[in-house]
Amino acid sequence: MKVSLIGVGLMGGSLSLSLQKLNCHVNISGISRKETTLKKAQSLGLIHQIGSMNDLINADLVVIAIPVEATVTILPKVLDHIGSKTLVLDMGSTKASICSVVADHPKRNQFLACHPIAGTEYSGPEAAIPDLYTHKTTMLCEVEKTKPELLERAIDLFNNLKMNVRTMDPMEHDRHIAYVSHLSHISSFMLGKTVMEKERNEQNIFDMAGSGFSSTVRLAKSSPDMWLPIFKQNKDNVLETMNEYIGNLQKFKSLLEKDAYNELHQQMEQINLIKNILKD
Amino acid sequence: MKVSLIGVGLMGGSLSLSLQKLNCHVNISGISRKETTLKKAQSLGLIHQIGSMNDLINADLVVIAIPVEATVTILPKVLDHIGSKTLVLDMGSTKASICSVVADHPKRNQFLACHPIAGTEYSGPEAAIPDLYTHKTTMLCEVEKTKPELLERAIDLFNNLKMNVRTMDPMEHDRHIAYVSHLSHISSFMLGKTVMEKERNEQNIFDMAGSGFSSTVRLAKSSPDMWLPIFKQNKDNVLETMNEYIGNLQKFKSLLEKDAYNELHQQMEQINLIKNILKD
Repeated sequence: MKVSLIGVGLMGGSLSLSLQKLNCHVNISGISRKETTLKKAQSLGLIHQIGSMNDLINADLVVIAIPVEATVTILPKVLDHIGSKTLVLDMGSTKASICSVVADHPKRNQFLACHPIAGTEYSGPEAAIPDLYTHKTTMLCEVEKTKPELLERAIDLFNNLKMNVRTMDPMEHDRHIAYVSHLSHISSFMLGKTVMEKERNEQNIFDMAGSGFSSTVRLAKSSPDMWLPIFKQNKDNVLETMNEYIGNLQKFKSLLEKDAYNELHQQMEQINLIKNILKD
Repeated sequence: MKVSLIGVGLMGGSLSLSLQKLNCHVNISGISRKETTLKKAQSLGLIHQIGSMNDLINADLVVIAIPVEATVTILPKVLDHIGSKTLVLDMGSTKASICSVVADHPKRNQFLACHPIAGTEYSGPEAAIPDLYTHKTTMLCEVEKTKPELLERAIDLFNNLKMNVRTMDPMEHDRHIAYVSHLSHISSFMLGKTVMEKERNEQNIFDMAGSGFSSTVRLAKSSPDMWLPIFKQNKDNVLETMNEYIGNLQKFKSLLEKDAYNELHQQMEQINLIKNILKD
């Protein structure tokens, strides 16, 4: 199987590790704007060789794993270059813009819009890890617009990666993912900012930070190159989640100001029910 | 060594497991308002027997590991009951109120105000785990008010538990811990609330939640019985952190509304520096 990876960082690199584990005959070419990233990916064994857009004509699979803004730009060009049997997947955390930019492309039916719900706060080829995708969920959008035999090939691939597959409308996807993912990143970035501003000259205060702070602020280590384009592309939904989040904080603050402890206790008990909803 | 544990949940229970591992001759009595909690703690091997305030006279060590509001109430009574060689420690996440309530107690010098920076989002005797305290930091306040030989005994104990010891003024402690711990809990509770309100009738949307959401919302599983008294006792500091946090969220939102992506990118890069500050 010939694979072209556009983007060889955390997401693309981890996929490469999984593909190589599944199939020793896979051959992986890497495409990236940065020569140094490609060299690094090659030295880490994430790609077999440096590729180019001209290889796409012979690729069985093209995976686009770059920031979502760049995906919107490159995806139509990728479809222009592929062969008649090539399947193209993306891995972006937004789906509406990406689906929309190829809505009328003559090779739309060779593309499948994907969002594997997997990742870490690290980025770049060095961040690639084996089994990143194992037992994770991948969201697929507009599956009816992908050729059935290519869709089937994609689903086989996700099954082989031991991933759960779910389908969703792209607008719905973006609305929900703003809540369960994008807002978490913003709340974490702002927590990091608030604490760093306060404790600027007191590095040692961070010795007081326990595992609770570490886990809540973890996403503040995420790459702005990856995440800012997501907030930009999903701006309306993200702003809506921020309004609701800020509103909830203001209400909590005002209850605390008023010493309304019964109401606060009740509210916190209600939120505790998230124990029953979250899987881990 | 005779130990009386007032509170046999996550903090007290975990300490018991560590003490028993360190010293097979330790004898641990448990004191709690709830008979069922004591029975549970006994069946889990966290206490050797159910104790009472009348035992404190013969105890070498009394550890108070209950919500901070209850600590403020019980601590003077505990000091009333202890013998002349008893050392009393608390484990509360606030220190100013606790230190203040015993400031003039005739046995103030047998008390050491402690805050071990350790915990999980779970509570109760079942939540007790071995090694909760290993390699964690414990904050000590007003060490000069504790009898030197009792302070030394406490520090030996923390060393045996492989804990790092730091000292700090109680007001300072409360001001800083509001940032690095209490605010994380509130941001996490409010994230949980915002997402649950939105996705109320769509349990399956939580399948879209990845490890990022799980880690950011983890503290929203924490016990209101433990945490609300902390917010109450540290109200002024907590309100200050909330003001700054809400302010930062509002500024971020307004930059996003204005499409000020360069400024947002710069801000996120700056926050990324938390990588260098946090230990893990």
